[in-house]
Amino acid sequence: MAACVTEVGVVIRSSRLATDKEKGPDRIVAQIESLVAIVRDDDTVAIGIGVPGAFDRERGIVLGIPALAGFTGLPLAQRLSESTGLPSVLENDATAAAIGEWRAGAGRNCENFVYVTISTGIGAGVIVDGHVMRGARGLAGEVGHTRISDSTDQCSCGQAGCWEAVASGTALGRRARDAVADAPDGVIATFAGGRPASAYHVGLAARRGDARALQLLDEHARWIAYGLVNVQHAYAPDRIVIGGGLSELLDLMSERIDEVVRQRRLPGFPDIPIVAAELGDNAGMVGAALQASWMVSAS
Amino acid sequence: MAACVTEVGVVIRSSRLATDKEKGPDRIVAQIESLVAIVRDDDTVAIGIGVPGAFDRERGIVLGIPALAGFTGLPLAQRLSESTGLPSVLENDATAAAIGEWRAGAGRNCENFVYVTISTGIGAGVIVDGHVMRGARGLAGEVGHTRISDSTDQCSCGQAGCWEAVASGTALGRRARDAVADAPDGVIATFAGGRPASAYHVGLAARRGDARALQLLDEHARWIAYGLVNVQHAYAPDRIVIGGGLSELLDLMSERIDEVVRQRRLPGFPDIPIVAAELGDNAGMVGAALQASWMVSAS
Repeated sequence: MAACVTEVGVVIRSSRLATDKEKGPDRIVAQIESLVAIVRDDDTVAIGIGVPGAFDRERGIVLGIPALAGFTGLPLAQRLSESTGLPSVLENDATAAAIGEWRAGAGRNCENFVYVTISTGIGAGVIVDGHVMRGARGLAGEVGHTRISDSTDQCSCGQAGCWEAVASGTALGRRARDAVADAPDGVIATFAGGRPASAYHVGLAARRGDARALQLLDEHARWIAYGLVNVQHAYAPDRIVIGGGLSELLDLMSERIDEVVRQRRLPGFPDIPIVAAELGDNAGMVGAALQASWMVSAS
Repeated sequence: MAACVTEVGVVIRSSRLATDKEKGPDRIVAQIESLVAIVRDDDTVAIGIGVPGAFDRERGIVLGIPALAGFTGLPLAQRLSESTGLPSVLENDATAAAIGEWRAGAGRNCENFVYVTISTGIGAGVIVDGHVMRGARGLAGEVGHTRISDSTDQCSCGQAGCWEAVASGTALGRRARDAVADAPDGVIATFAGGRPASAYHVGLAARRGDARALQLLDEHARWIAYGLVNVQHAYAPDRIVIGGGLSELLDLMSERIDEVVRQRRLPGFPDIPIVAAELGDNAGMVGAALQASWMVSAS
């Protein structure tokens, strides 16, 4: 997925390809190059790349992408610079999305701001004191894998008790399948239609007023809220913006989330808006592009 | 407690008074003024004050100190500036200690660094990307009150499941008293000598090789480690420095802490040193003083 983004964060052209994971990194780099060729124009000054893994910012080298084999050690920025003639900059994908929402979305004008993406996993990008927070190796903000519970539900990272393990879309899907097992003729099961039930089916059933689905969302909202209180205590943002697939159910959970956050939060911490992201899937591309253009203009 | 601190963070004179809580803020301000009069000299350029609560940095006004009544709304910086003739700067006490250890203690030369104080409570000061992290209202870093467990042990904040509720010196003291109730003739009970057992007595018994005390510290180290992993995931420091009273037992717990941290940490995050603070009780004074002198020289 690639986009041509203006200096104020507006997407004027975008294109996407299904990642061809099987043929290795050379094939994927070729896919990126073909997307760049489609979306770039004569005014394009830089390429920003959101990396879903660890990388060396200064040297533009990928250190490892859990979901894609073969990228470790790849000098991705240099490869793209050479083939496109444009300076290329790597950015963490959640940080990129945070920058996008901060500059052109729901986090505009916030000095302190956290973007939390809740989908199959949970990630975050943090703006604090007007700076993009990176930390050692750019790894700061891994809130999805902070321990929040004694739950033995397995997390994608192999541990248990992580926020992601109890509050992600994956966790809601697991609860949905338990609910279907308990009530094979229920509304959630009906929407799932024989496929494994997911967070999406819970949302459909809840919007029809199904009591079991509403109860699942109430429980899920509580786990999301616990983690958001942790986020507020850790980073003291003025605003939290929720992106990712589960943000589409935020309207169904907001009241409960706000209630639990208010209950658990330390005295002295203010009420802050907890709102849905504005840029959707574009947030990461917008943020990576803006970051790359700043770095080019600053150098 | 007040100190005269050099530009490189060396304490050349200090003095302390027991806080006279009963007579209200005017009395405590007078105590601070008398301490300043004792430690200041002709070269003193500024006063830095560590505040154990919320405050308005720009205006130098205390917004509330949980442990001291009557401070809400007090223009503490202005009061001290007027009475001493020296510019005065408020700083969060944990942040001040982090600055002290960062500039003159165990966090020297770290770009990313977290100071965690573990005593009756748990607090933290965070340096990230070479900046002191503050967040909205200077409240960032309240890691003691991030939820980490489903435990129903009550926290000082009124909630349950906070890191502080399971890993502070208070929590270890509670477990020590349970151990004494189970074994009234045990080594911990002997060291307590009829008083309520505390973390200190567990340490004494553990240094004598008492199996029950070592077991308590092993369990406690696990809870400390879970929180330190959360700290590493949240802020990605190059180093964590542990201060506060419980740091005196760190040598007894380090091996277990390092083991649990390595087990729980995400792939991609490096091994980082987790070490005891170097400045002890002086860290906050050193950091507040250095911060105040920078602000004066920058203005």
